[in-house]
Amino acid sequence: MRQAPSFAPGPLGTKGGMYRPLSEADIQRIHSAALDVLEQTGFKGATDTVRDLALGAGCKLDGDGRLLFPRALVEDIIDGAARDFVLHGQTPSNDIEVRDGHVHFATGGAAVKMLDSASRAYRPSTLEDLFDIARLVDKLDNIQWFARPVVATNLEDWRELDLNTVYACARGSTKHIGTSITLDRHVPEIIKMLDLMTGRDGGFAQRPFVSVHATTVVSPLTFAEDSSNVATAAARAGMPILSQTGPLAGATAPAALAGTLVQTVAESLGALVAINLVKKGHPVITSGWPFVADLRTGSFSGGSGEQALLGAGQAQMMQFYRLPTGVPAGMTDSKLPDNQAGFEKALTVTLAAMSGPSFVYESVGMLASLLGCSLEAMVIDNEMIHSIRRSMKGIEVTDASLSIDVIDEASRHVGHYLGNAQTLALMETEYVYPSLADRNSPDNWTEQGAQDITERARKRVAEVLSAPCPTHITPENDAAVRAAFPIRLDPKTAQGLDGRWVKGGN
Amino acid sequence: MRQAPSFAPGPLGTKGGMYRPLSEADIQRIHSAALDVLEQTGFKGATDTVRDLALGAGCKLDGDGRLLFPRALVEDIIDGAARDFVLHGQTPSNDIEVRDGHVHFATGGAAVKMLDSASRAYRPSTLEDLFDIARLVDKLDNIQWFARPVVATNLEDWRELDLNTVYACARGSTKHIGTSITLDRHVPEIIKMLDLMTGRDGGFAQRPFVSVHATTVVSPLTFAEDSSNVATAAARAGMPILSQTGPLAGATAPAALAGTLVQTVAESLGALVAINLVKKGHPVITSGWPFVADLRTGSFSGGSGEQALLGAGQAQMMQFYRLPTGVPAGMTDSKLPDNQAGFEKALTVTLAAMSGPSFVYESVGMLASLLGCSLEAMVIDNEMIHSIRRSMKGIEVTDASLSIDVIDEASRHVGHYLGNAQTLALMETEYVYPSLADRNSPDNWTEQGAQDITERARKRVAEVLSAPCPTHITPENDAAVRAAFPIRLDPKTAQGLDGRWVKGGN
Repeated sequence: MRQAPSFAPGPLGTKGGMYRPLSEADIQRIHSAALDVLEQTGFKGATDTVRDLALGAGCKLDGDGRLLFPRALVEDIIDGAARDFVLHGQTPSNDIEVRDGHVHFATGGAAVKMLDSASRAYRPSTLEDLFDIARLVDKLDNIQWFARPVVATNLEDWRELDLNTVYACARGSTKHIGTSITLDRHVPEIIKMLDLMTGRDGGFAQRPFVSVHATTVVSPLTFAEDSSNVATAAARAGMPILSQTGPLAGATAPAALAGTLVQTVAESLGALVAINLVKKGHPVITSGWPFVADLRTGSFSGGSGEQALLGAGQAQMMQFYRLPTGVPAGMTDSKLPDNQAGFEKALTVTLAAMSGPSFVYESVGMLASLLGCSLEAMVIDNEMIHSIRRSMKGIEVTDASLSIDVIDEASRHVGHYLGNAQTLALMETEYVYPSLADRNSPDNWTEQGAQDITERARKRVAEVLSAPCPTHITPENDAAVRAAFPIRLDPKTAQGLDGRWVKGGN
Repeated sequence: MRQAPSFAPGPLGTKGGMYRPLSEADIQRIHSAALDVLEQTGFKGATDTVRDLALGAGCKLDGDGRLLFPRALVEDIIDGAARDFVLHGQTPSNDIEVRDGHVHFATGGAAVKMLDSASRAYRPSTLEDLFDIARLVDKLDNIQWFARPVVATNLEDWRELDLNTVYACARGSTKHIGTSITLDRHVPEIIKMLDLMTGRDGGFAQRPFVSVHATTVVSPLTFAEDSSNVATAAARAGMPILSQTGPLAGATAPAALAGTLVQTVAESLGALVAINLVKKGHPVITSGWPFVADLRTGSFSGGSGEQALLGAGQAQMMQFYRLPTGVPAGMTDSKLPDNQAGFEKALTVTLAAMSGPSFVYESVGMLASLLGCSLEAMVIDNEMIHSIRRSMKGIEVTDASLSIDVIDEASRHVGHYLGNAQTLALMETEYVYPSLADRNSPDNWTEQGAQDITERARKRVAEVLSAPCPTHITPENDAAVRAAFPIRLDPKTAQGLDGRWVKGGN
């Protein structure tokens, strides 16, 4: 079995947009309704900063104290929003070019539990889990943005949590990092820590390799004070923002899917306006994450056909505005990486990705309606995404690929295409050979132990986690970070894995 | 947990066509190339009947004895082909309306092995397995056409195999049946048996509830004698035909995916021409089934991103001709109903269905690159298709569903949508509640035994197979069939399960 797919289905950032659940007329109607909601219903809970800037820009407060956004302001902000920017990796080879219609895959989540897939037991997630996940995701070829998937529940102090979360992500990964930050006053401290990692003042600002995930809106249509202040601080400090809102259809958003999209678009644009009022043209991934409630219980449910539609619909809406966006998918309700997890993830990730958002978040590793994370699921889902990216690459139609002469020759003579020059030329570039998915005959598979993919994944995870962990952080810079901040990741855990130091970087 | 989904995502025959991997220009180029291949490369191996009819209609034989099809003839046949017909169920409630763009799900396959999912052991499939599968599929709400998924390998005589295959399918199921037939002389015998089941001469012709799967073309571009003769006999006898061709990209078709589509279209149209020359306007499902070879081994591989593209592309091509068509999907390479099976099936079935063929075949139960079948996989895959059908139903955009007033009211007052009139009105019609997929919290799931979906499916299978088996065949008609033909299904096995007889039927 090959250890890694030999096939790259085009450069990372595959083009999407071939699946379009909403018609052009549908998009116009949802757009118009969202602007109505922004103008007539507006938001409650604006921070002082945002309210003052908004009133200065033409917004009004109604009798209930809700901040109403005039259409012209919203349209101006959309026009002036950042597009086509680079999100920096910790090493330059991991830079992400955010461009209209190009789809990238990211982790995501804030799970509080880890699954032991062999014993089927869940336990609280820790800082050490986060470090292991970072190291594992660093080896997953289809993932470009490492958003912290689990919360380090063994850290209770918010400042320590924020600092150590960023540290563990940066220490274990060389990719672009995303994480939430609890309070605005932690933003400058984190940037100081990131500067120390690079070994120079202003090192972070030169290549901002960490984005903050800011849920500035709580549904329905309410600004969240702490997150809004974090977003304001990040915008002022030059830290890119993943602006999130997570309306739950049937619970904190309408049960009608179109209504949930209207509210998601309104909330997404409201959050974008607030950030752009602080700093026009700041790099923002305008991510509405419309979720689905199981209406029997009111609980979040992530793996359904409704979820697949909402993700794709929201991606279409943000592309209508040409705004960089991300949607969540791959959020199975299963507690195990079983067949349910496989089909729920493939349905939602396939349709989300084909609809063309800039990012698909939560795309690997998550289980249990985002409450849990699994290392085995991460490597399995990465392989699934490889197949999905092959499908996204599409069918190349050229005079050569139409193969009229090849067909005539093969049909009239040898009667097959094995060993044909075209076959040999295309076998390494047009076909994916999976590394975990099994293609053996039943007899060979039985002889090799009759394993399921989770058992094979367990072996792969162990291989990765026992290997050295490259990092761009030199031992000297690491020591400086540890001297300045309360880093809780055992230095032996981190240092003992260092076989080598990656050159280059920030 | 609910025993069955309460939600029907629209009537069976959901509209497809929202995923379109080929552009209009791509379609035109593939169409033109396929007509070139039909005119310049043509087919070898035409039967005497087909050759004589074809030469009479303007075809030519070239120096290699290949039958060449002029463009005008192919276009005339396409124009005159059957569209918008009914495929009859064994009971009228199972009738299938074949209409442009409406997608139905079917079984399919000719597996020779059954999986025992608990012990992970494969064994040869039998007539009794086929009967059990028929009874199980009869209870799967998302499946409308029961094409025999396994071969009764315990029958060696071809005549007995053909007769007993149809018998076991008809005795266990009330849906439309599909099966292959080995030799043309078996066709009238089978129709005689089907007449006896209905209790009257001409009963089958009145409501033809069995289609023959005829692989009249062996790739590349060669008519198969026995199957062609079966198709000729079926057309003359009024039995609908699923016309199949199965080119294998990289082995019996070009490695270039566009080239495989060109050959698949040419083979599909060649087969359609041959049948229509025998009987113009005969009901045919023109099914090109482009498959993928793993080019490291030359073996068929069913679960890949390339397979997803080929299925969707072929569906688009046949819709271009407005021909009823079916494509295969759900053909995982995994040997177990594990996560690999889940994601490979969901990727291929989602994209095939969204592209809008009349039928998606092989859509439940198949494993091991079509070599194996699993009862547990059947019920799991049926649930997956329910979610996919929900996604296919799309997002309804109306003044009411845009929910502007609902959003304003909820945002200004209660702050949520639980118990909202709109939520209550939509919760039973717009949302799917799965019956096998788990949505419990990790704690509840652990308390309930920490099962995976395959374990839950095993219980469901046992429930269905221990229940009475309704049939439209009366005991008297069944006795008449058994008196006239060598039926090998133990009458105790079949009769002992009959708790009641379904009224109505043919």
